[in-house]
Amino acid sequence: MSNIAASIITIGDELLIGQVIDTNSAWIAQKLNALGIDVLRRVAVGDNAADITSALTGEMARATLIIITGGLGPTADDITKPLLNEYFGGKMITDARVLEHIKAMFARRNRPFLERNMKQAEVPDSCTVLFNKMGTAPGMWFGKGDKVVIALPGVPFEMKSIMEEEALPRLRQRFISDAILHRSIITAGEGESFIADKIQDLEEALPSYIKLAYLPGAGMVRLRLTGRGADPIRLGAELQMRQEEIAGRLGKIVLSLEDLPLEHILGQWFTAHSATLSLAESCTGGFIAHHITQVMGSSVYFKGGIVCYQPEVKEVLLGVKKETINNFGVVSEQTAVEMAQGALKAMKSDYALAITGYLSPTHENGATEPGTVWMAAADHHETATKMLRLHYDRAQNKELAVSMALLMIWKFITRSS
Amino acid sequence: MSNIAASIITIGDELLIGQVIDTNSAWIAQKLNALGIDVLRRVAVGDNAADITSALTGEMARATLIIITGGLGPTADDITKPLLNEYFGGKMITDARVLEHIKAMFARRNRPFLERNMKQAEVPDSCTVLFNKMGTAPGMWFGKGDKVVIALPGVPFEMKSIMEEEALPRLRQRFISDAILHRSIITAGEGESFIADKIQDLEEALPSYIKLAYLPGAGMVRLRLTGRGADPIRLGAELQMRQEEIAGRLGKIVLSLEDLPLEHILGQWFTAHSATLSLAESCTGGFIAHHITQVMGSSVYFKGGIVCYQPEVKEVLLGVKKETINNFGVVSEQTAVEMAQGALKAMKSDYALAITGYLSPTHENGATEPGTVWMAAADHHETATKMLRLHYDRAQNKELAVSMALLMIWKFITRSS
Repeated sequence: MSNIAASIITIGDELLIGQVIDTNSAWIAQKLNALGIDVLRRVAVGDNAADITSALTGEMARATLIIITGGLGPTADDITKPLLNEYFGGKMITDARVLEHIKAMFARRNRPFLERNMKQAEVPDSCTVLFNKMGTAPGMWFGKGDKVVIALPGVPFEMKSIMEEEALPRLRQRFISDAILHRSIITAGEGESFIADKIQDLEEALPSYIKLAYLPGAGMVRLRLTGRGADPIRLGAELQMRQEEIAGRLGKIVLSLEDLPLEHILGQWFTAHSATLSLAESCTGGFIAHHITQVMGSSVYFKGGIVCYQPEVKEVLLGVKKETINNFGVVSEQTAVEMAQGALKAMKSDYALAITGYLSPTHENGATEPGTVWMAAADHHETATKMLRLHYDRAQNKELAVSMALLMIWKFITRSS
Repeated sequence: MSNIAASIITIGDELLIGQVIDTNSAWIAQKLNALGIDVLRRVAVGDNAADITSALTGEMARATLIIITGGLGPTADDITKPLLNEYFGGKMITDARVLEHIKAMFARRNRPFLERNMKQAEVPDSCTVLFNKMGTAPGMWFGKGDKVVIALPGVPFEMKSIMEEEALPRLRQRFISDAILHRSIITAGEGESFIADKIQDLEEALPSYIKLAYLPGAGMVRLRLTGRGADPIRLGAELQMRQEEIAGRLGKIVLSLEDLPLEHILGQWFTAHSATLSLAESCTGGFIAHHITQVMGSSVYFKGGIVCYQPEVKEVLLGVKKETINNFGVVSEQTAVEMAQGALKAMKSDYALAITGYLSPTHENGATEPGTVWMAAADHHETATKMLRLHYDRAQNKELAVSMALLMIWKFITRSS
């Protein structure tokens, strides 16, 4: 039952002053988790030898596997490689394969090969090189007793490439452990406390090897069951039983039993029903279209969208009447309805979603109601509308509006079923 | 010269299995940094009493200020509050103001007030309550010797509200320290190594209290000078001198001396020139429009965009000729040119940017060249085109395409100046 414990150390001043958001750790954690390796801690430190050494020593005392990202670039603020060389003992050598690869990369990009790039091909002779086909900084695998330390560059696509092709296969071979399985229940329309109260007895009855977590988001709460055990088939069956039990209790607030973003759930529906969608976005400025097109294969059901940021574009491309805007305002139920119907017509789709609003929490464009958003969902028979009142800052309100709009089209398309 | 050292501890299993990306830490780090408080370490641990205690003990030994986020929600997996109560000694009491506030929130939302919500109003009597006007979980401020521990809920907008209104004013009063100032140089068109080589002597001549960092991104490298000192006016003057010296050496690859995203730099230009922009997006699916509209005030110069995901929408709304698509393909220089010219006309803008491509690294839609993207920038006199060949996954290629497109329109509008 006990799994390999891992720590992730991320290196970079930019992480500590908050200029860069660390997405690498989450990605690495997902991959390790799928292998049955538990990430117990994540530590971020700056580009500073003492802090890096202290973090490495600290995590070596806790974890069997330590993954380090960052601090391997060609510029002067990078100090991780010599530090690892000293920590694991040995000397720096030039790796011939890496050197050849770096020279080829520079040649392909027509860039001069500089003295400092030469150093990128140097590695401690105590490590196994993890080849970086996407970039110049090689990954490194060190062993010390039963512990493994892997150092990777911080550039996300380089890190991911080395993990996928070099590190994960070796980790799979090195550490065999219990299976960890997840099952999800995606709900919309009720809060965390309501749900917790409704399923309290089911949650309390969970065996010790199954954990339930609540992940609240805009208008939605995701429930995640995590189980671990030696027998993945038996574990999977039990998880599914628990999942169905909870979903059954929660009834109609359950949206999906798959842990997918709402745009994917929408995509499955549109594909299954051979139906098409178009958008008319004002305040969300193309962000709904971005979400819809994040789904591979969305070009089959997504016709397109009109980002009508200025009123004139609403009139010319969507046929919203000038009188409607004059009489009711750009942000009004009437304008949203005409935008949705205009999108249906302009892009010849089966369904359309329209949104218009003032996202800023302060008064902009003479808006009397900052944070007011009107949405409309339409097909060729019916149009539904909904108003939102948003209270956060402009960027957060934009994200919330997108989530609520996706939820609205979901409710609209599934309303009769 | 020595500053207050801080650690940030984030709590939540969802961080360790990678289901949630930690954006709170970056935000907190920025705010502390602006006060002259250095974040030395960030640690993430799961919803587990032993790991939380170990992290707290470990960071108490290193830092003067510890900020904890997460683990304060109403559901059963939250254990931080009793743990802090035990750690700092004392007993749990119900805070009358918090209780009243929680009841009012539930009433406003027409939700039943449940037994477990009552517990949200309980706090250790050893803490000062940091009022959470945005949610139900109060923040807490603990003192132990010269050290301060602040516990905040993990929901981003609640955490931010408590920090801004309760924690930061108290921190400002408690810890006075050196000023930390930043200056940036935003460049485009050359890599990190090239720049480092070009300014090596200037970098080596920097005094010990000024640090230079390289932050590479798509097609761009941001240089950040960070200085610290007791006299902010003198420090500011010196940083500006160093900034101008480096920018002067780098010459025409310098895009801006302000640390702003490219869409803001574009916004400044369009506003200053009273010019307007429209977009025609195929493969980026509205993501360029999203970036443009992230800028407050963009409604003045951004007319709108057409997300023409299906070829038919390109023809009907942008006037792309059927023969062009048949003869050259949807992803071609010719189609991009007609899309840009169509956007100019349809939305009556001064400038237009168009993009069409295959973002998947594998063959989709019968594309012969996966990763090929054509872009066109146009005004009423001239049209420029550019081809990209992208090699990463679909989501990364989308982000890269957006960055390169923003860079292209920037180069186009500033070409003659």
